Amino acid sequence: MTREEIFDQIKSKHSFLCIGLDTDPEKIPKHLLSSSDPVFEFNKQIIDATHDLCVAYKINTAFYEANGVMGWESMKKTFDYIPKDIFTIADAKRGDIGNTSAMYARAFFEKEKSGFDFDAITVAPYMGKDSVTPFLQYKNKFVILLALTSNKGSQDFQLSSRLTTSDSGLLYEEVILKSQQWSNADNMMYVIGATHPEMFAHVRALAPDHFFLVPGVGTQGGDLKMIAENGMNKQCGLLANVSRNIIYASMEKDFAEAARGQAHQIQFQMKSFLIN
Amino acid sequence: MTREEIFDQIKSKHSFLCIGLDTDPEKIPKHLLSSSDPVFEFNKQIIDATHDLCVAYKINTAFYEANGVMGWESMKKTFDYIPKDIFTIADAKRGDIGNTSAMYARAFFEKEKSGFDFDAITVAPYMGKDSVTPFLQYKNKFVILLALTSNKGSQDFQLSSRLTTSDSGLLYEEVILKSQQWSNADNMMYVIGATHPEMFAHVRALAPDHFFLVPGVGTQGGDLKMIAENGMNKQCGLLANVSRNIIYASMEKDFAEAARGQAHQIQFQMKSFLIN
Repeated sequence: MTREEIFDQIKSKHSFLCIGLDTDPEKIPKHLLSSSDPVFEFNKQIIDATHDLCVAYKINTAFYEANGVMGWESMKKTFDYIPKDIFTIADAKRGDIGNTSAMYARAFFEKEKSGFDFDAITVAPYMGKDSVTPFLQYKNKFVILLALTSNKGSQDFQLSSRLTTSDSGLLYEEVILKSQQWSNADNMMYVIGATHPEMFAHVRALAPDHFFLVPGVGTQGGDLKMIAENGMNKQCGLLANVSRNIIYASMEKDFAEAARGQAHQIQFQMKSFLIN
Repeated sequence: MTREEIFDQIKSKHSFLCIGLDTDPEKIPKHLLSSSDPVFEFNKQIIDATHDLCVAYKINTAFYEANGVMGWESMKKTFDYIPKDIFTIADAKRGDIGNTSAMYARAFFEKEKSGFDFDAITVAPYMGKDSVTPFLQYKNKFVILLALTSNKGSQDFQLSSRLTTSDSGLLYEEVILKSQQWSNADNMMYVIGATHPEMFAHVRALAPDHFFLVPGVGTQGGDLKMIAENGMNKQCGLLANVSRNIIYASMEKDFAEAARGQAHQIQFQMKSFLIN
């Protein structure tokens, strides 16, 4: 999917919502546990109930790998069930030496080899350029590079004032600047956590054209209004991810309806930011 | 497995060799392709031929994920086939926010949930402390934290002289120092690439007691003698990984014998370093 196609979806749905399928078999409603694949059954109903309200689904690979081989089967069925006009993100935080990153790219981008052809994958920058470039060889697919993450540990290196560039930049700023030498906004995005809403104007200035995947809205407490006001660009430029607040809105039989209610509330808020 | 048990294995086998099972179905001998699981069949014969010469096997998850669900099945069979006295490493380069890292820990450390209970997993440090600590909750298991990797991209951030701490440290040094506040040598190791042999004395001074997993010996050109002379501590403290140079020593029917030959040559060299 191209950047323009993502923006078309955003305009048509009045939404820049990404729903995170962080599906933990220990947290889904009990009545689903008798089905042959409870995780897929849960995801299927969530997707049915929300696909007109979001522009992206993000599959957090950890939650599937935690169930071993069976988990990868649930992930495959879930991926196949997502409507084709919705942007799909493998939230996998991969990254390794070149020949290994090429294998991860095959795993998430080459359907004929692995069964998956996501539109995007999250990648960690620590190992530098040659750990990222194998993912950039695929047309109309995106690397979503970790820049400023939503967790407390973002203080340890990314934002550490102990660690600065010769022109006083922080690590996350150096990642954003250096990685723009490897690629452009047509096949790279950045992870910018919603828990740093005061920093969005500055980050937008560092990467004017890139989409940002913004985790941490909801459970982690990010302020969507401030993010929209300071982080949008002329193509919206934001995919705001909500996982737990939507998918675990209810633990009862009405979970999918409750998820839709939460997603609708967020989409309604987003609509007002998109019109202004 | 404890640090002492690893050292016992090293003494008993006169080896600190780790063999990397980076098994690419496109690179294995053609006569195996007719078997029901060529990747597992290849690994099985490699393990049979080399297990007395190495103290660890490292499964590079990328090569299995590249084959989708079937790849995870090959990984499971391979893991189960490795003799229990050999240290097992999931070379997965994972790391995410706390609740997600806890899922990755379940995926690689909790057999009853996922089918796997590796002794160690490689973890990327970019997201900081709370992305690492969930893996540290398991007794006698290890986080192997990326510090100084073997690839060219290690220059981009880890070794970048543009990016220094207030006391002139580089990013990889900050990672080694800060992470020692989270844990100790009993459940943490570091990845230190063999392609930086001149730096081993310095890195050993930063982390005197920790084991180092040393990739890049062989194909990537690391100098084993210099690494051993400068990197060893009183418990050896090194696990030197060789992947392609051993497992792809021959593309013919004699591949396992050829792999044993390569492994034996390296183990013979290691024996001399361990005796001195």
